[in-house]
Amino acid sequence: MKELTTISTSNSHGGVQGVYSHKSDVCNCDMTFAVFLPPQAEHKPCPVLWYLSGLTCSHANVMEKGEYRQAAAEHGIIIICPDTSPRGKDVPDDEGNWQFGSGAGFYLDATIEPWKKNYQMYSYIARELPELISANFNADMQRQSIFGHSMGGHGALTIALKNPECYKSCSAFAPIVQPSTADWSSSPLRRYLGENETAWREYDACHLIEDGNLFSPVLVDQGSGDDFLDNGLRPWLLEEVCNDKDIELTVRMQKDYDHSYFFISTFMAEHITWHARHLNNL
Amino acid sequence: MKELTTISTSNSHGGVQGVYSHKSDVCNCDMTFAVFLPPQAEHKPCPVLWYLSGLTCSHANVMEKGEYRQAAAEHGIIIICPDTSPRGKDVPDDEGNWQFGSGAGFYLDATIEPWKKNYQMYSYIARELPELISANFNADMQRQSIFGHSMGGHGALTIALKNPECYKSCSAFAPIVQPSTADWSSSPLRRYLGENETAWREYDACHLIEDGNLFSPVLVDQGSGDDFLDNGLRPWLLEEVCNDKDIELTVRMQKDYDHSYFFISTFMAEHITWHARHLNNL
Repeated sequence: MKELTTISTSNSHGGVQGVYSHKSDVCNCDMTFAVFLPPQAEHKPCPVLWYLSGLTCSHANVMEKGEYRQAAAEHGIIIICPDTSPRGKDVPDDEGNWQFGSGAGFYLDATIEPWKKNYQMYSYIARELPELISANFNADMQRQSIFGHSMGGHGALTIALKNPECYKSCSAFAPIVQPSTADWSSSPLRRYLGENETAWREYDACHLIEDGNLFSPVLVDQGSGDDFLDNGLRPWLLEEVCNDKDIELTVRMQKDYDHSYFFISTFMAEHITWHARHLNNL
Repeated sequence: MKELTTISTSNSHGGVQGVYSHKSDVCNCDMTFAVFLPPQAEHKPCPVLWYLSGLTCSHANVMEKGEYRQAAAEHGIIIICPDTSPRGKDVPDDEGNWQFGSGAGFYLDATIEPWKKNYQMYSYIARELPELISANFNADMQRQSIFGHSMGGHGALTIALKNPECYKSCSAFAPIVQPSTADWSSSPLRRYLGENETAWREYDACHLIEDGNLFSPVLVDQGSGDDFLDNGLRPWLLEEVCNDKDIELTVRMQKDYDHSYFFISTFMAEHITWHARHLNNL
């Protein structure tokens, strides 16, 4: 069993909100993550819902502001909230740049020096952390779903599209659906993956779909008052590329909602209830 | 109409979470507070529920971590979250002391120099801020209730006991019920109010009740795993002093819950639903 350090646990909504750290082999540093165990996990393996956070966030932001515990306890779902990048004094960073380095791992495996030694968030989320969860918690790993916000919505979409057999459903709040061309993500993709834009397609939901990847069902909520809508998020690009494909996509524009946790927390319970339907449909 | 500066507004749970500041006459400084307007406030005056926060907090902590918006929107209740002390470069502080000064106003009117010029949180919460709310929001000030956490539970209890005609109901999460004798509050009371302990009784729920003040109904939730239970909170002192009095008090011990927002948010919806019953009983 992989070793886990418990940083804190607190009773909440009938379950337990914990924070844990471990030595990540793929990221070559200590990584911290949050796990909410619903009360049902005391007695039986529970399905797992992954929440991937956005730029600048750690595991803590959604744990504090996301309002996910009530619905997760009700439906008996384990919620995992990983960090958004490797961190630490031995991990290279681009200090002061909130779109690259610490807090901005973009859920990809970097191939360019000096980032590639640590910035392996794709393998971390899709491979290493699930093994650790499986070994340490009462989780039914045959029932996993994934969701996220902004950069984390990009992460959820691309990881689901690349591993459709692993997840029952995928949803996102205000996701970056085409990071290759979005204002805040094309530069990070270049620095992590190099000049050859073919390599970027592996980490771009719209391009993955163009290249034949499929995943269903997908639910997207997007605030119409989101400042990043036109230059960063553009959910219509996802709708366009899904039009001719066999993908069940629902995009809901939410009038006047912004990009904040006030938006995320509003629709959190609906997303969890939607995932619960797919997770419990075995 | 008193002047109000809007710092931010975000749609949330069908209503609007706002943050505002104003020049406080009683605290002699700019004060910041949060207001959640439920969707019903667009069409009719809504009742007001005051949430008073604990030591070290500003208006922001419960706004981010308290999970109050869903229930407030459902019941059509305005939630006001004031700051816990005056702040600013012209406000005296005891830097590094989390139990006194900034973030630790203890909801009293200081009488000792140099604190008395600004530390007037009792008058601010009970008198000045309600006038500002009444003038600027679609609030039915005939229907107010009050609750809070820890130091804020002390604030809610003492303000309700001193102004029973103003509030329909009072509740608290892990309140300091007898600050005169609690580890973390007897020293601040001495510094704000002086050596004469008679003056402290005005800001001590147990002593106010002993001295004949009455308020009903009161609901208290307390975690049994709270590190501050035995030396700071001691809800049994409130139960004892209420035994012979005409006060409807319910104290619920919540097994293994701690002092954090993970505890507060768990029982937040129940408290709001309980207040809604009393606020809507006109």
